[in-house]
Amino acid sequence: MVHTGACIANLLGQGGSRKYHITWRWLRFFKNDRDRRDLITCGSAAGVAAAFRAPVGGVLFALEEAASWWRSALLWRTFFTTAVVAVVLRSCIEFCRSGKCGLFGQGGLIMFDINSASTTYSSADLLAVIFLGVIGGILGSLYNFFIDKVLRAYSIINEKGPVFKIMLVIIISLLTSCCSYGLPWLLPCTPCPAYLEEDCPTVGRTGNFKNFQCPPNQYNDLASLFFNTNDDAIRNLLSLGTVKEFHLSTLFVFFVAIYFLGIITYGIAIPSGLFIPVILAGSSYGRLVGRLLGPLSNLDTGLFALLGAASFLGGTMRMTVSLCVILLELTNNLLMLPLVMLELLISKTVADCFNRGVYDQIVTLKGLPYMEAHAEPYMRNLVAGDVVSGPLISFNGVEKVSTIVHALKLTKHNGFPVINEPPFSEAPELSGLVLRSHLLVLLKGKKFTKQRVMTGLDIMRKFKAHDFSKAGLGKGLKFEDLDMNDEEMEMYVDLLPITNTSPYTVVETMSLAKAAILFRQLGLRHLLVVPKTPGRPPIVGILTRHDFMSEHVLGLPTYQSTQVDKG
Amino acid sequence: MVHTGACIANLLGQGGSRKYHITWRWLRFFKNDRDRRDLITCGSAAGVAAAFRAPVGGVLFALEEAASWWRSALLWRTFFTTAVVAVVLRSCIEFCRSGKCGLFGQGGLIMFDINSASTTYSSADLLAVIFLGVIGGILGSLYNFFIDKVLRAYSIINEKGPVFKIMLVIIISLLTSCCSYGLPWLLPCTPCPAYLEEDCPTVGRTGNFKNFQCPPNQYNDLASLFFNTNDDAIRNLLSLGTVKEFHLSTLFVFFVAIYFLGIITYGIAIPSGLFIPVILAGSSYGRLVGRLLGPLSNLDTGLFALLGAASFLGGTMRMTVSLCVILLELTNNLLMLPLVMLELLISKTVADCFNRGVYDQIVTLKGLPYMEAHAEPYMRNLVAGDVVSGPLISFNGVEKVSTIVHALKLTKHNGFPVINEPPFSEAPELSGLVLRSHLLVLLKGKKFTKQRVMTGLDIMRKFKAHDFSKAGLGKGLKFEDLDMNDEEMEMYVDLLPITNTSPYTVVETMSLAKAAILFRQLGLRHLLVVPKTPGRPPIVGILTRHDFMSEHVLGLPTYQSTQVDKG
Repeated sequence: MVHTGACIANLLGQGGSRKYHITWRWLRFFKNDRDRRDLITCGSAAGVAAAFRAPVGGVLFALEEAASWWRSALLWRTFFTTAVVAVVLRSCIEFCRSGKCGLFGQGGLIMFDINSASTTYSSADLLAVIFLGVIGGILGSLYNFFIDKVLRAYSIINEKGPVFKIMLVIIISLLTSCCSYGLPWLLPCTPCPAYLEEDCPTVGRTGNFKNFQCPPNQYNDLASLFFNTNDDAIRNLLSLGTVKEFHLSTLFVFFVAIYFLGIITYGIAIPSGLFIPVILAGSSYGRLVGRLLGPLSNLDTGLFALLGAASFLGGTMRMTVSLCVILLELTNNLLMLPLVMLELLISKTVADCFNRGVYDQIVTLKGLPYMEAHAEPYMRNLVAGDVVSGPLISFNGVEKVSTIVHALKLTKHNGFPVINEPPFSEAPELSGLVLRSHLLVLLKGKKFTKQRVMTGLDIMRKFKAHDFSKAGLGKGLKFEDLDMNDEEMEMYVDLLPITNTSPYTVVETMSLAKAAILFRQLGLRHLLVVPKTPGRPPIVGILTRHDFMSEHVLGLPTYQSTQVDKG
Repeated sequence: MVHTGACIANLLGQGGSRKYHITWRWLRFFKNDRDRRDLITCGSAAGVAAAFRAPVGGVLFALEEAASWWRSALLWRTFFTTAVVAVVLRSCIEFCRSGKCGLFGQGGLIMFDINSASTTYSSADLLAVIFLGVIGGILGSLYNFFIDKVLRAYSIINEKGPVFKIMLVIIISLLTSCCSYGLPWLLPCTPCPAYLEEDCPTVGRTGNFKNFQCPPNQYNDLASLFFNTNDDAIRNLLSLGTVKEFHLSTLFVFFVAIYFLGIITYGIAIPSGLFIPVILAGSSYGRLVGRLLGPLSNLDTGLFALLGAASFLGGTMRMTVSLCVILLELTNNLLMLPLVMLELLISKTVADCFNRGVYDQIVTLKGLPYMEAHAEPYMRNLVAGDVVSGPLISFNGVEKVSTIVHALKLTKHNGFPVINEPPFSEAPELSGLVLRSHLLVLLKGKKFTKQRVMTGLDIMRKFKAHDFSKAGLGKGLKFEDLDMNDEEMEMYVDLLPITNTSPYTVVETMSLAKAAILFRQLGLRHLLVVPKTPGRPPIVGILTRHDFMSEHVLGLPTYQSTQVDKG
């Protein structure tokens, strides 16, 4: 859902898809980097809000995990998005309550309501919570470790072709089916409790007590967990006042099975997420610990299951505020808030000792050029001048067309510095930065002059502002689209009207760590490095995002092209 | 409470108070700008968490309102702070439940629990909500307008001396007492409802039905609101299923009285806040509208009161996510979340048309050098070079003591650029920035040389790192603490060891708007402006926070020294 939300937002940000004829004129106003990034953030917030029916949790998820660069305006924009989601969701649930949507749309605005719980707890309970959090943190970081290994293995398999991909999916589904169907055979039947108001066993519909292969009036508790929708299984695990409903052995078998099935399922070529498997494994783990510690603690096993889910989420995803609010909105149990907060903090702290959050791992694994929020320690010993690489290609303010064309052909750079030289200035001086995409638009426009003169803003009359707006992914002008004849190649073009004359600059002796902070905090794409001493060319080089990646600086290999969904 | 939390945090950040002998050795690690800022943020979050028993709301309040510069690490640090607050609060409430603390510590973790409400609502209700939000937004912005006027008037009165301050307090208290005691006389008594489980009238304790001057078995409904603690009054207003408990006229009189009393009380020399008066006025307004719209809407009047409080809070404070979570944590009613979100957004949007949030207004009024998150539009037409002002005072890498002493004496600047000159470099070049406080420490240490030579890092052996750490407010070395004789004045001191050699710089032709973004996003104090063309001195000037204030740039007068508490 998160991914879906972000994808729709990205589509809007690209001005719709021309391929499928869904495009609007007003969407072109979003065609720039900042608005597109904001839209994607709002989209992921809306996705979380819809998936977990947690509007505020969605805002915080976007804040804590999705957005690497936060603006205060973004806060109430995402809030507005999720408010709309909440109202729409509320109306749809109201509409579906009359049974018009079948199984789809069951349940209220709160997915796992455990509000009725009494929550008096003692110091013994606090100790149990701490124990749960520490073990949960360790298991969570272990989950991340396995996910990483499995994804690396899968990426090798997936690269071999679609046949292998499908084979992998079939094998995993067979394994899942075998576990789900085979394991319940191993465990004995349980007689239905006498005090029950519901049907027991439940046959032919989703519910708590699955008959499976048991005689009448008995149920198989493991089947009750496996043969349900995930939502219902979680609801079963979180249910209060049902201490004896699941056996210890059942919970143990279910926990181990779900833990490893969750690990091997993530990353195969089907749309699957992380949240629900982790909550499922966590709540079965919590309920297991709750049963074991039962004699020592007054907390209900259902509440233990909730805390177990919190500790697993904290241990794998390493978020705090957003998970806390999402869990609050999922369960509607405000009185458990202090314990959930404690649980999340403990498991996050414990897990942070071992490895990084699962989303960070996946980003690294996919080799995405993602900048860490913090500068790496080694950066303190480097200066900006050390890192800029390769021969620098710069243009004059009024440049020959052939020079530009060759530069575009030879390099993949996205930005080029523009240097004013005599006779247009007294000495060579840095004029600004010109973007590759803007250069392509300018060249395509063919507004050239025979002489080397500044045409100034005249040239801009030919273009409208949105000609330079960012095109959709793969939709922009490509170098191959240019078509120059020899005469045009010898002509000149004035770059100054499309030059950004206020690029951010750093002195070459600036510490790389401080340059990284600048880059990250301002959400930059290029940073010009200027010399410290006079009498040298007015620019030393350009820093791009890649220059701050440890792989680039330290020469480490990157691991590319793994197929992973972030759901 | 917010203010108290921030104050305690600031005290910790200053390494305790030497005056009152509360200081710890380990606190000196916090003696720097960043940690102190973070501590104050955490402190204000803890304040909100404790005041409203809303730990997550506290984190979001700190995020949305308190912190102008946010780091991701800060998120879980504030979360940790509020988690500790929540656990401590929980234990104290548990301890006090047995009646050991008297009236102090009454109530559970949720202050105004209205959880039991059924919340089916129709489109007519949505219209009512929108109406409530629009009027609430207008009333909220009017509240801000009056607060601003009243604070300006009070600041004139307060400046005249402590006698006037006390007089003002006495007058306001008299007025409040007259209103509270006088107004209930105007309204008739109401017979106690028959179906009640509580005592009616309640005499000698806090409760719903105040006897006031009525005959037995009757109560005065206005007195029930006035003669209660604020918390109980709010609880009365939010109470569900009690449509007839308060008359329309009562609600109207109470609303008008509380609205204006709230405005005139804020800013006098007593510790008072904004939240509770605004919630009180908002919920009476909401209940009033609920009574008026009763025939059209199915929502309970108690829920209308909640939505009214939300619209007032949105209209005055202009926060969204944090208010939403605080209200959620105050009332424990998750099902109202979509409506509360809608309400906040509507009232914020409406009120934003008229003026700014109340906290922004107060910051402007106090003349604090607070930088707006967004660059002002006029900044786009200015470049950094236009704004740097006054004669620039810079030092050589190795500078004569007398020059430094004179510079410190003549100016109040907090940072000075250091320029390396021959013979220490080939040409004059910018070496970095040195802070006034560090210069004072260096001069106090008297590690001077007779000759003009670089002493290098030798000099640092005399100092420990924490000698340069930031001292408490008014505790740092002052210029008057220096004591130089004539011989020392003629000697030299090497500034390079204490120079920040990686200061952030901008070229003089950089747009002021972009420089402002840099300043704000990185939380800078000084920004060096370097020349664009070679052959000029290596630095043009320094930009400080004040250079980005519109008063400074446009020459507007600032309104200083108003006495306002932010609670």
